Amino acid sequence: MAVYTDVSAEDLSAFLAGYDLGELLSYKGIAEGVENSNFLVHTGSGHYILTLYEKRVAAGDVPFFLALMEHLASRGINCPQPVKNRNGATLGRLCGRPAAVVTFLEGMWMRRPAPRHCAAVGEALARMHLAGADFDRKRRNALSVTDWRPLFEQAAERADSLQHSLRATIEKELSHLEKAWPHELPQGVIHADLFPDNVFFLGDKLSGLIDFYFACTDTLAYDVAICLNAWCFEPDHSYNVTKGRNLLASYIATRPLSEAELDALPLLARGAATRFLLTRLVDWLDVPEGALVRPKNPLEYFRKLRFHQTAASVRDYGIEREKRTA
Amino acid sequence: MAVYTDVSAEDLSAFLAGYDLGELLSYKGIAEGVENSNFLVHTGSGHYILTLYEKRVAAGDVPFFLALMEHLASRGINCPQPVKNRNGATLGRLCGRPAAVVTFLEGMWMRRPAPRHCAAVGEALARMHLAGADFDRKRRNALSVTDWRPLFEQAAERADSLQHSLRATIEKELSHLEKAWPHELPQGVIHADLFPDNVFFLGDKLSGLIDFYFACTDTLAYDVAICLNAWCFEPDHSYNVTKGRNLLASYIATRPLSEAELDALPLLARGAATRFLLTRLVDWLDVPEGALVRPKNPLEYFRKLRFHQTAASVRDYGIEREKRTA
Repeated sequence: MAVYTDVSAEDLSAFLAGYDLGELLSYKGIAEGVENSNFLVHTGSGHYILTLYEKRVAAGDVPFFLALMEHLASRGINCPQPVKNRNGATLGRLCGRPAAVVTFLEGMWMRRPAPRHCAAVGEALARMHLAGADFDRKRRNALSVTDWRPLFEQAAERADSLQHSLRATIEKELSHLEKAWPHELPQGVIHADLFPDNVFFLGDKLSGLIDFYFACTDTLAYDVAICLNAWCFEPDHSYNVTKGRNLLASYIATRPLSEAELDALPLLARGAATRFLLTRLVDWLDVPEGALVRPKNPLEYFRKLRFHQTAASVRDYGIEREKRTA
Repeated sequence: MAVYTDVSAEDLSAFLAGYDLGELLSYKGIAEGVENSNFLVHTGSGHYILTLYEKRVAAGDVPFFLALMEHLASRGINCPQPVKNRNGATLGRLCGRPAAVVTFLEGMWMRRPAPRHCAAVGEALARMHLAGADFDRKRRNALSVTDWRPLFEQAAERADSLQHSLRATIEKELSHLEKAWPHELPQGVIHADLFPDNVFFLGDKLSGLIDFYFACTDTLAYDVAICLNAWCFEPDHSYNVTKGRNLLASYIATRPLSEAELDALPLLARGAATRFLLTRLVDWLDVPEGALVRPKNPLEYFRKLRFHQTAASVRDYGIEREKRTA
């Protein structure tokens, strides 16, 4: 939960005067999103989300994110639409920060996703990958395999304070991932953070995807692996094979996975678990004084990594090879 | 900013099934309010605020707060209206906590109130006091003069860690307040926390009052003294006599203050400053581990107290005695 920058009514009114959205009626800081400050804004013309991009988001990347949302929306993906100001720009400045207004998306995120939600997210992810195929901008994934060791080095000294021999386990895992990581799989624009809080539902129907602020150009199947980690484990960290099967089968029904992608899935899932283990570990050990965000427990991802390390093939995730294009 | 209890879509839908508000379309935790968890809820019939009362609010007090909002709204005060469920009740339970739905109030709170806003709040406070005159419930102020010393005792040992001789200064002030505190002034229902974030404006027009969760039965002029502290000091802690004059003159124009009330105002303002100094001091020294709320600096109120200690009469707050019923 986060509002890092409070905005005065005067400043917001002045900012919105550059848009064609009618009179400002109310705005509230939203307790969601850990990277940026978000406000739900009501004006004469409707409801919008105002985002102030805080320092963890590089200002130079914001045009990529906004262009991606515009592109995906134009291809039929239900996601927030950046609103243009009177000069035709989607990016402005407010309180010294890059700022944008996007349309408000109805729907709720699932605190306890069921298998049917996993099926819906698998299909939505595949549709997003297909819709992104002709997106012409590129953004390097700043949290990919080569970035994990520098991240680990920030936390290595104190890693064992969380769990016995955590440091050695991660060290060994990183060496394996760096050697074995696949670089020839199909690439494209990935969401890279499609956790349950970024997927909205109305009833059981998926109503939209939000928060594209980790989106980048990377291996498409790695995005699937991130979703397996984010959606298919139970609160006790056990893998739910029904959820995994649903997610994978729905994805494959929309965008078939190649033999090579299926073969790589257990390794990609290890990588995804390691990436979230490492960023959470760094956040956990580096809570700034007066922090407004309670860091998430890194050990959740250590347990997930343990599961992936024991997986021999994609069968362990719930699907038969024959069904891969079903 | 605070959402202490997260609510799942399933639980919220089940809760709202008891109301006649239409289908749940979205809800977001709001980064406002430090005592409770608040959500902005959109349903088929409109926008509402859902509040889960956390442990700092005694469950037994919630009916008082809800009845007060209903009463004030029925007397023309623009404040959130508790929504009745199908059984006619305004109070329910959600996630193990007392919970209520109230109407959404348009408007914005002023981060930098100007003198014209102080005039508006003076009038609104007086109107609220008049509207509360025939409210038949009572609630003892749990943060009144007799409660300050026990509060101080929680913090006394460590008070000087914030500022040299803070402990002795508060000790002496408490002795004075306990002896001199007036008990014969007109009483009634007071808001007791009418800070800028609890007063909404649309343009320059005051559009409503919110957050009645400190409301209680106490000295009416003490509520005025709280507002002088909350609205009439500059960011450098200097008293702005124009703001004070506006607030007091507008209040008096709607509800005249008696000679006794005017005489007591400097003392009541000292008491109000001491009350917020003490609660902030306790919060500052007792930040729980993993706290989501950054405590407010207590020394702001120490500086305000110093000002009030030097005030000889209500003239020092910006009004002439002759004008008291202007």
